[in-house]
Amino acid sequence: MTVLILTSEEDVTADMVVLRLGEAGVPVVRLDPADLTNGVALSGEYARGACRGRLSVGGRLVDMDGLRSVWLRRPGTAAARAAQPSAWLTEESAQALYGMLRCTGARWMNHPDAARRARYKPWQLRLAQRAGLPVPDTLITTFPQAAREFAGRHPDLVVKPVSGAHPQEPPRAVPTSRVAPDTDFTAVAYGPTLLQRRVPKRADIRLTAVGGTLLAARKPVAPDAHPDDVDVRFAPSNAPWAPAPVPPPVAEGVLRYLRGAELAYGAFDFAEDAEGVWWFLECNQSGQFGFVEMDTGQPIAATIADWLAGSGSPQAGLLDDEEFSGF
Amino acid sequence: MTVLILTSEEDVTADMVVLRLGEAGVPVVRLDPADLTNGVALSGEYARGACRGRLSVGGRLVDMDGLRSVWLRRPGTAAARAAQPSAWLTEESAQALYGMLRCTGARWMNHPDAARRARYKPWQLRLAQRAGLPVPDTLITTFPQAAREFAGRHPDLVVKPVSGAHPQEPPRAVPTSRVAPDTDFTAVAYGPTLLQRRVPKRADIRLTAVGGTLLAARKPVAPDAHPDDVDVRFAPSNAPWAPAPVPPPVAEGVLRYLRGAELAYGAFDFAEDAEGVWWFLECNQSGQFGFVEMDTGQPIAATIADWLAGSGSPQAGLLDDEEFSGF
Repeated sequence: MTVLILTSEEDVTADMVVLRLGEAGVPVVRLDPADLTNGVALSGEYARGACRGRLSVGGRLVDMDGLRSVWLRRPGTAAARAAQPSAWLTEESAQALYGMLRCTGARWMNHPDAARRARYKPWQLRLAQRAGLPVPDTLITTFPQAAREFAGRHPDLVVKPVSGAHPQEPPRAVPTSRVAPDTDFTAVAYGPTLLQRRVPKRADIRLTAVGGTLLAARKPVAPDAHPDDVDVRFAPSNAPWAPAPVPPPVAEGVLRYLRGAELAYGAFDFAEDAEGVWWFLECNQSGQFGFVEMDTGQPIAATIADWLAGSGSPQAGLLDDEEFSGF
Repeated sequence: MTVLILTSEEDVTADMVVLRLGEAGVPVVRLDPADLTNGVALSGEYARGACRGRLSVGGRLVDMDGLRSVWLRRPGTAAARAAQPSAWLTEESAQALYGMLRCTGARWMNHPDAARRARYKPWQLRLAQRAGLPVPDTLITTFPQAAREFAGRHPDLVVKPVSGAHPQEPPRAVPTSRVAPDTDFTAVAYGPTLLQRRVPKRADIRLTAVGGTLLAARKPVAPDAHPDDVDVRFAPSNAPWAPAPVPPPVAEGVLRYLRGAELAYGAFDFAEDAEGVWWFLECNQSGQFGFVEMDTGQPIAATIADWLAGSGSPQAGLLDDEEFSGF
């Protein structure tokens, strides 16, 4: 049984997992959909009520039924490196590859449908609420008057993009910013705006969830930090991330969230306030983990490798809560 | 409780359903996401563990919690008609609108996740097999040798795009064509190719499924039809579509397919062979139905209106088959 990793060549973080799988003697195929029709080939035949799919990567043939798991990491655009790339060829190639992989019984980290859905920030906030995680009061609106009223009730606000940061597209990685007290909200009418109560934080938390394993890291806010430095990704800080225990109610909420979202992997960002409460900010289903592993020494790559090599249920370790999974 | 219809202004087929809902006294809001920030406004507030979303369309305010159902028909690109349209505004607006609608308890025809997945042809074929519907032998490949061997076993083949026809994008609506016996399959290496055994058909079948209601229409192949005219959408024919009874095994298979695909609406195409067998060709989750209703007088629009106005389970009338729904 083979592990299939869909990612680009430049993805060095994936190398860490490939290494672990290699050490464990688990067969791995690494494939970039960008190489389709130019180094990567596929074939699937439907006959007598069954389907048999095969992939060929660098001359190596893999039976799709022999796939143990698929790691949808950072795949390139299908057929982008074909001899004659085109939008049509990309569409055909993506449909063929992902269409066939969807027919296998392989476990996904993460399934493309779950991955796509998990990007909707308004849905994330609602799911976090339902999972019992504390969510700072938030408004998403195109009504200037609603923004004014919200700002009246919450004098200390941050603004961030509704669609979140897209790691693959640097121009869209807009930092979360503090809203000045005298802000004119008229322009809200021209584009949906996400306003959120600023959590006066004493630390940033990055919780990496792999199946049912939760690894949290904490970075204290510097005593001389300016309250305008709200976004840990852009804040000036030399403090490293350090391992942190996960408070049991948070662990329970995170597991409920993962189950509701049908995710096997998620990188959660929390803000820890002065009382020690972890406020949910977002869950990035494709969030990086290399920098956390580097700072903390937490075995994230090894845990991912174990999950990919495992044969248990895709959501092993998560809460069994039938009523919740329907969200 | 209101029915929300997401579609463009030009969608005259939706008018038929709006008319029916109006006659039944069911409140309807028709909205084109293209009008976001320019006629359409939205707002959602997250506080105290709950979310309250509102939409404003032409000055009319709708509570998202008061939505009975959402008909995802032919929506325009979000914010495409904004004063200053941009890719960023489209992304933000789509995330805000669909992200919030995903948080409601409304029934969807069809849910965006199910709709998206349902477009994968390789997945459709596998699901049809699993649902017990007869599927013509099919090969999807980039291996010229696999194509040659398949053609050797099946001398009478058709070729069609893997991604199917995209109604919104006419350049991509490639007709299904017959493969000449002496075809050179070398070029298969440059793009995934879908080859399928040609079903010598005596009629085309269009089965429109609305929840658990199945309405089939049949168009006999003209006696003088050329076997090269394989695609009913492009074949010259004056014969109208006529209502046809659905054979019970087909009905059972279609209901299993809908349940597996989590679809509330589907337009199935079958080819009826000389023995009367209905061979599954495809299921278009957004297939048109106006032309069938026009020819057959079948109450498709009224059935859709009933479904949208109803309050039962989204898959009411479909088979209860827990083991199958996980596909």
